[in-house]
Amino acid sequence: MRKAIVLILISAFQLMLAGTSRAQTKPNIIVFLVDDMGWMDTSLPFGETVMALNKRYHTPNMVKLASQGVKFTNAYAAPVCTPSRVSLMSGMNAAHHMVTNWTSLEKNTPSDFDSKENPFITPKWNINGMSPTAGIPATVQVTPLPQLLKDAGYFTIHVGKAHFAAAGTPAASPYNVGFIVNIAGNIAGQPQSYLGEENYGNMPGKTTYYAVQDLTQYYGTKTFLTEALTLEAKKAMDYPIQKKQPFFLYMAQYAVHLPVNPDDRFYEKYLKNGLDSNSAKYASMVEGMDKSLGDLMDYLEEKKVAQQTVVIFMSDNGGNSVSTARGGALHTQNLPLREGKGSVYEGGIREPMIVKWPGVTKPGTKSDEPVIIEDFFPSILEMAGVSKPKVVQEIDGQSFVPLLKGNAKASQPRILTWHYPNKWKAKELPQIDYMSAIRKGDWKMVYDMKTQQLELYNLKLDLGEANNVASANPEKVKELAKLLSDRFRKWKTLMPTYKATGRLVALPDEL
Amino acid sequence: MRKAIVLILISAFQLMLAGTSRAQTKPNIIVFLVDDMGWMDTSLPFGETVMALNKRYHTPNMVKLASQGVKFTNAYAAPVCTPSRVSLMSGMNAAHHMVTNWTSLEKNTPSDFDSKENPFITPKWNINGMSPTAGIPATVQVTPLPQLLKDAGYFTIHVGKAHFAAAGTPAASPYNVGFIVNIAGNIAGQPQSYLGEENYGNMPGKTTYYAVQDLTQYYGTKTFLTEALTLEAKKAMDYPIQKKQPFFLYMAQYAVHLPVNPDDRFYEKYLKNGLDSNSAKYASMVEGMDKSLGDLMDYLEEKKVAQQTVVIFMSDNGGNSVSTARGGALHTQNLPLREGKGSVYEGGIREPMIVKWPGVTKPGTKSDEPVIIEDFFPSILEMAGVSKPKVVQEIDGQSFVPLLKGNAKASQPRILTWHYPNKWKAKELPQIDYMSAIRKGDWKMVYDMKTQQLELYNLKLDLGEANNVASANPEKVKELAKLLSDRFRKWKTLMPTYKATGRLVALPDEL
Repeated sequence: MRKAIVLILISAFQLMLAGTSRAQTKPNIIVFLVDDMGWMDTSLPFGETVMALNKRYHTPNMVKLASQGVKFTNAYAAPVCTPSRVSLMSGMNAAHHMVTNWTSLEKNTPSDFDSKENPFITPKWNINGMSPTAGIPATVQVTPLPQLLKDAGYFTIHVGKAHFAAAGTPAASPYNVGFIVNIAGNIAGQPQSYLGEENYGNMPGKTTYYAVQDLTQYYGTKTFLTEALTLEAKKAMDYPIQKKQPFFLYMAQYAVHLPVNPDDRFYEKYLKNGLDSNSAKYASMVEGMDKSLGDLMDYLEEKKVAQQTVVIFMSDNGGNSVSTARGGALHTQNLPLREGKGSVYEGGIREPMIVKWPGVTKPGTKSDEPVIIEDFFPSILEMAGVSKPKVVQEIDGQSFVPLLKGNAKASQPRILTWHYPNKWKAKELPQIDYMSAIRKGDWKMVYDMKTQQLELYNLKLDLGEANNVASANPEKVKELAKLLSDRFRKWKTLMPTYKATGRLVALPDEL
Repeated sequence: MRKAIVLILISAFQLMLAGTSRAQTKPNIIVFLVDDMGWMDTSLPFGETVMALNKRYHTPNMVKLASQGVKFTNAYAAPVCTPSRVSLMSGMNAAHHMVTNWTSLEKNTPSDFDSKENPFITPKWNINGMSPTAGIPATVQVTPLPQLLKDAGYFTIHVGKAHFAAAGTPAASPYNVGFIVNIAGNIAGQPQSYLGEENYGNMPGKTTYYAVQDLTQYYGTKTFLTEALTLEAKKAMDYPIQKKQPFFLYMAQYAVHLPVNPDDRFYEKYLKNGLDSNSAKYASMVEGMDKSLGDLMDYLEEKKVAQQTVVIFMSDNGGNSVSTARGGALHTQNLPLREGKGSVYEGGIREPMIVKWPGVTKPGTKSDEPVIIEDFFPSILEMAGVSKPKVVQEIDGQSFVPLLKGNAKASQPRILTWHYPNKWKAKELPQIDYMSAIRKGDWKMVYDMKTQQLELYNLKLDLGEANNVASANPEKVKELAKLLSDRFRKWKTLMPTYKATGRLVALPDEL
């Protein structure tokens, strides 16, 4: 009898332990996503050597994070923001979810520009973004990452820029995609102002949809937006930390997107270093962003949870290389990379990425394996111990968790694709609009829909994509054209049509 | 040995049970706080009989709630909103916390009006509202109710209007007063618009600080603000319900404050019933608010937590009786009560209040005992099992929990006080501005600072405060004058000064 009691009690005890100890075994996960940050906007070199732009910027906390984790030198996103964010939240490639451009503030409103010179009609991409529910016009229905994490016991926090969908649709609100707490995230793809003195844009008569919400406590103060969001994130983490509940913090800084406002904590320094005013402002925003990263890392230490917290650093697309506001001549901002935001050349898609997973990653290592933004979805689920997520979408990403453990190599060369059947700006941007690309191993093929040309680059030898070696490697071009076209056919990827004829633009292997 | 193991296991088991079963033993608590709702804006009679205005309004869910709980017929708040809200959050009387008027949107900006006729300088009341931290100018420092509930294991949710403090101060944000989730609460004391078609006021070029934040997913839809907030509240409750964690939902509807927008779900009905357009719009907003209450109650049933959830219904001040927008002649909207919002006469301070605590309250009962908004603080803490809260402020409220159990009477006649040393509107409102009052038992004394007169009413015989019986009852006047003055001296309550002489207005017992 007594033995039976002991056994029953032991069983009950174990059951309860299993229930309560979940908080201890799952790591916290922070995705620190920067907006519009280029691969070179950092003092941490992601290239083989320290290059000119690495000397311009000061990002000591990125350096520190890299010294504690793995630096990914071949990490990618989509060329503009909403496609990347939807990929992260869904695990799908942009050519598959077909949110190929940024979503407008108002629904049913394409963000694409047009011009007389433009030969194309942009395809019917999902202009309203993603949706957690079926039946919302012009959206891709997905089971979003935060929802799965919440269902798995995570306390899910959204801070900063959301921009998953247009106004009047469910995913306009982070509360509808699985976040328990949301601060400042909605339909806006940029802040109206970074300045507390300008209430982040909330100035009666001048307020637009870009004015940042949820921050009235900082109005009229000198708190830069990046700092305000950091303070709010720390406060939001307090609760799960205290409850010993694993948390997922999606820390999506509005920085370093336009507008370029000086972060006064750092601005003077860059002027003294000889930068022009615009470049100095931009550099101050970069360092403000880096301080946010450092402050969050310090906070994890202070709260004694750093050892059980994964920190993933990423940007959502390449650095802006067409805006005069950030300083510099056209397309010089991401050198040695070609072009910038909007483009499928490396300057538009290659990203600074760092992952620290205490106990898993080896401090101060790097991985040259190609990874892409949709990989975040399966990777984070794997970290969270969600092995078979029930999702409505087909997942394209692959977990990069195996790459975190030492100097692992991918077993198969990874095939990555990009698709931008859109026109980004009113002005003509010949090497940005209407392009697709594919990378396999060191080879990258770029498809310019306007010229109907296929370009080929060897990224190992030619990081700047200066030498098109297509004519010397017809077999490689053919192989990549077929691979890209097969994917697009499988995904039912939409192509533009010719205004003149109404005919579809050919896939690369149909040329 | 085996016995020892059994004992250890039993102890451990009990400890864990104690830890995990907290969710079961603490009730969920919903405060459903309506804005500017008068005592007569309901089909549920709070007076002795069904009166004319009770027949105008349709609030079936208030009737239902009252049938399941206790109706308080002598419940009070302060005459305007921020004072009441700070009292609720702090347990302090307005004459004590000295946030005597509504807080402006911008800090260091008194909301008081002035005029040539006004003989007074308004005292230095706490124009920036309350603050959870010390050292914030023109605020009262308090340990806020949600913080104490959060510390006691509650999942704390803010939905709707906050209006605890001015912009640029901590309590502008519900996140700074202990709420884990905040939807739409900030510095605003009213919405710019209730209409989804108008994005709740978020219309570039027209957006003011009153535009409601956090609701982009409803922009351009026909979702009335009251309904949008209800949907968000249901979603926010899901998480603690699923986690079996007790929650505190502060459901502070913006309704039925100005602006008066028609709630199309109900508007036509009231037109058909013969109301003028403005009155019909207002009545539709009242019924929309009542539907929100009903929807939340239904949701508790659906989620099978109704039996462990306290629901408290309350308004923050009397019905507006000076606005033409809501219809009706001046000061007729709260009849038989005298005056309305802003006034210390019954029309400005007497509130519809209902409390349902399953297993505690007796269905369909009523209590005529006087209670007041600062009583919510100790009452809710008692419900939550917080017996000795560590707070920085001195608490004036008394728990009404003993009144919930059957037909209990207060052991001592309750003394309630009001203080409004302010000028509400630009126009002269002789029976609203610069008044104080005290109630003890059935007696109420009103102090008109402008006329320097003390009025006395017997509320049992004269609910409408039509017969000033001061001259017939000099001893009662003297007693109440002393009681009120003693309190004000103890609390260091601030009085206005005369513009002409710079001298302080006398306390009632100094006349």
